[in-house]
Amino acid sequence: MTGLNGVRAGFAGLGFMGKHMACNLLKAGVDLHIYNRTRSKAAELLDEGTGVADTPRALAEAIGGGVIIICVTDTPAVEAIIRGGEDGAGLVDGLSPGALVIDMGTTRVESTRELAQLVAAKGAGFVDAPVSGGEVGARDATLTIMAGGSDADVGRAAPYFDILGRAHTHIGSVGAGQVAKCANQTIVALTLTAVAEALVFARKGGADPAKVREALLGGFAGSRILELHGQRMIDETFEPGGRARTQLKDLEQTLEYARSIGVHLPLLERDTELWREMVARGWGDLDQSGIMVLARALSEEGGGEP
Amino acid sequence: MTGLNGVRAGFAGLGFMGKHMACNLLKAGVDLHIYNRTRSKAAELLDEGTGVADTPRALAEAIGGGVIIICVTDTPAVEAIIRGGEDGAGLVDGLSPGALVIDMGTTRVESTRELAQLVAAKGAGFVDAPVSGGEVGARDATLTIMAGGSDADVGRAAPYFDILGRAHTHIGSVGAGQVAKCANQTIVALTLTAVAEALVFARKGGADPAKVREALLGGFAGSRILELHGQRMIDETFEPGGRARTQLKDLEQTLEYARSIGVHLPLLERDTELWREMVARGWGDLDQSGIMVLARALSEEGGGEP
Repeated sequence: MTGLNGVRAGFAGLGFMGKHMACNLLKAGVDLHIYNRTRSKAAELLDEGTGVADTPRALAEAIGGGVIIICVTDTPAVEAIIRGGEDGAGLVDGLSPGALVIDMGTTRVESTRELAQLVAAKGAGFVDAPVSGGEVGARDATLTIMAGGSDADVGRAAPYFDILGRAHTHIGSVGAGQVAKCANQTIVALTLTAVAEALVFARKGGADPAKVREALLGGFAGSRILELHGQRMIDETFEPGGRARTQLKDLEQTLEYARSIGVHLPLLERDTELWREMVARGWGDLDQSGIMVLARALSEEGGGEP
Repeated sequence: MTGLNGVRAGFAGLGFMGKHMACNLLKAGVDLHIYNRTRSKAAELLDEGTGVADTPRALAEAIGGGVIIICVTDTPAVEAIIRGGEDGAGLVDGLSPGALVIDMGTTRVESTRELAQLVAAKGAGFVDAPVSGGEVGARDATLTIMAGGSDADVGRAAPYFDILGRAHTHIGSVGAGQVAKCANQTIVALTLTAVAEALVFARKGGADPAKVREALLGGFAGSRILELHGQRMIDETFEPGGRARTQLKDLEQTLEYARSIGVHLPLLERDTELWREMVARGWGDLDQSGIMVLARALSEEGGGEP
């Protein structure tokens, strides 16, 4: 039991992840007040009686000293919600002391730390809590949540995490959740490309990729990516899931932060070029597993000596 | 039950994998005749009454129309055993019609197909059955086995695979097992480097790598490599296991075969440069997870803009 039945909380962002997460909070009995840039989306989702706020500021005012969860597409979107503009309609403009802001999107590490300071200036707490698990994880509440913040703040967020995901890990102070998410995306992207190149190679070498996937799952090559995305590559079903252009955005953000702290990541740099090439070829809206389409195309171009 | 109790079979190669595999066959009651280049190794291992052959030819003669398993370091070693030299002491020189040769090492795809033809000319069958799982898998009989050969030959090999591993998959015709092993090594090497770069990045970004590993295991970044080798990277325990130089050999072999069939694998090519660099820096005898040492060194050199 989470003990959140009837507790009022705020939720901003009803995108392909957020809509499922808001639903799961509502189902768990949270008295959810919603803000979404496109108001009609909020209206669709909500039962009568749940509050819909017109601005992030109005959302903050409705929640008072409670918890506000944000799940939007990218750093500019979360900046827009928290900072607002000259109209003074941002979340910070309405934030009460004692409130807790939880950003569950994938946001730049530096921006995360700046936004946390802005929120702290209002006497409120901040937790960065990006997730892994995609739309399926959001829908089935099996997300993996990587949290950065103080012990007290992450402890206060925990009952919400219990509703939204399978597990959460307190990685460290504010920003550490986003650093972990960067590490996650590094491994996910590289493993996707690895599986893609391996399956393309296997087929060209005369082996059945489905048999190869099956054989490899039990050994050191076994991974969640080989299991799920490897199957999608074999079936060539690339409806997103997680889009390639989102993966590229996350990788660019990771490399940008890595460079800012003087860290060189040679394999990730090469892989990011490949994801950039995938998007440049018009495949950015495919599922991430569509990297196989690029790997297949590249396998036949340049570099190969017949 | 395998039904091999008292059945005579041959085994060539008592290296760090083969010694465990031979032991497991002996424990299962197989009447094993052994050949090893260094005879004393065979003597150490065996109980009285088990046959030790002086040459591969003598091993083949002792086994007659039975099954002979080979598990040696590399392609030249398996070529030496099967072809022998001018002295006529090779396995083919003593091979009886109806025998079955099973190569469980990681051997070049083209050589595999040539050796299978040589063996077929003697009226014997050939199965390539490389493994994944390392020394621990060999010891605990939890290897994953990727088999290439005819249905009949792989069926005949299956009871031995049941003793030696957790699972075997019949990938396709002769050589397909080695193609699958190449695909396996591609994924393993790239995942190792991915985990290494991610953990190095996480530490430099102020997150605890142990927490990051823990958080990521439950999501899309989860893999056997993150679980096992990720822990070794965190503990910095690099006793081999699987050596980096063996990984490099397997990757060079994979790229060589890929080029020979006109297949370009851009990410694997970059990764192979990194493994080559690792060996060049004198870290070739570290466990594969030692790629973290290279990733850490490279993270501080070139490319990074402070």
